[in-house]
Amino acid sequence: MTPGPPRYEVIGIVGIGEVRPGDDVTRLLVDAARAQGTPLATHDVLVVGQKIVSKAEGRILKLSEIEPAPATRRMAESLGRDPKLLEVILRESRRVVRMDKGVVITETHHGWICANAGVDQSNVDADTVALLPEDPDRSARALRDGILALTGAAVAVLIADTFGRPWREGLTNVAIGLAGLPALIDYVGKPDSAGRPLQMTMLAVADELASAAEIVQGKLDRIPAAIVRGLRLEAADGGSKALLRDPSRDLFR
Amino acid sequence: MTPGPPRYEVIGIVGIGEVRPGDDVTRLLVDAARAQGTPLATHDVLVVGQKIVSKAEGRILKLSEIEPAPATRRMAESLGRDPKLLEVILRESRRVVRMDKGVVITETHHGWICANAGVDQSNVDADTVALLPEDPDRSARALRDGILALTGAAVAVLIADTFGRPWREGLTNVAIGLAGLPALIDYVGKPDSAGRPLQMTMLAVADELASAAEIVQGKLDRIPAAIVRGLRLEAADGGSKALLRDPSRDLFR
Repeated sequence: MTPGPPRYEVIGIVGIGEVRPGDDVTRLLVDAARAQGTPLATHDVLVVGQKIVSKAEGRILKLSEIEPAPATRRMAESLGRDPKLLEVILRESRRVVRMDKGVVITETHHGWICANAGVDQSNVDADTVALLPEDPDRSARALRDGILALTGAAVAVLIADTFGRPWREGLTNVAIGLAGLPALIDYVGKPDSAGRPLQMTMLAVADELASAAEIVQGKLDRIPAAIVRGLRLEAADGGSKALLRDPSRDLFR
Repeated sequence: MTPGPPRYEVIGIVGIGEVRPGDDVTRLLVDAARAQGTPLATHDVLVVGQKIVSKAEGRILKLSEIEPAPATRRMAESLGRDPKLLEVILRESRRVVRMDKGVVITETHHGWICANAGVDQSNVDADTVALLPEDPDRSARALRDGILALTGAAVAVLIADTFGRPWREGLTNVAIGLAGLPALIDYVGKPDSAGRPLQMTMLAVADELASAAEIVQGKLDRIPAAIVRGLRLEAADGGSKALLRDPSRDLFR
């Protein structure tokens, strides 16, 4: 029998309302997937937007309760940014990468480099900001373990956020937390012309999966998660950290 | 009637052999999609890896015929790179962005910023390199027009290549040429806390589609193209250039 062409499907998960601190996101996702006729199944990759995870974990702050440091106030004024928001961004960061033209790009405590340390004002009420989950790999593992316990389905879980990038306009969805799937996949190419034995090409499959999911999520918060179905990815437990470039190899620190 | 959840499918196109200068890629893709039981259809997005387009367009060079300039030889020695290859990279570039640690990142004549100006040694014979198509938007339009003429199907076409990026390990597939689909999609969010009327979030949907396709292409050259089916993207004719960040807004020149 000839196998058909390789194919997979991306299915948005609808019907999850506003998520609040303490909500059981595992159960919300399992129930919503079942209710729409696409229950979670072994080998699925469940891609979950960071926002509902952060909200459920209570990673939200009231800006009105933030007291910016004097230096932060001055920097915010130069930048044309809200000093309370800048204070939160700096608290979530271990290093400022660029601060110019109204843009603040930092390295978060996790090691992700992105605008505003991932602190997000959209789709929360006007005074509230959502931070990235404290440990998105841990959040992903908890979801994976919880789904297995509730349903028996061994799904891989990917926590995603939309990041900008240098040189190219527009945000793309990328992976910030992983459980049960690899961050990178190596493809071995041909020997190169200099006679070096093999060229390796490393694809950031986790980021590509996050992007594939975002396309169906569209407006981001009405559809906070998606199922990627039909791939047989190798199981892997290394989390997301393999996506972080080593500083010694980074030309854009 | 309740509509089901939003979903789409990605289908690899198999059975396209080695492509040579002058080959009719339009017909190769149309025939291969038909032969595997998934003929191209209106609303499909056809994602095509740059390599087969470049080869068909004759955008290949023999390194043995390249004579590096003296300055190029000296730079290649400092970098530990092949001087003939470096010569080709520089000819394909309008500007060097970084040249360090064995890595050459340039801005191509199209405006793309990537390693090696997109010049690729993999999956061509040892002495041969493939350049990016001269005008990937034009290549995409030719494919779109050709498929419409051959089959009556109005597909969108996306020419893709795998690029690295700062800060994150691994390559992801991105769009370098577009016909019939938008590069970016704007999502309008809620009013922000500073009272500004609306926050816009711009998603690089073309890059996300390229990434979605790469997942099923896997080893890159055995499956040089993929169909993204089930989305209803707005038709757009602006090409890929909206993905290029304006230098005045770029903090990582």
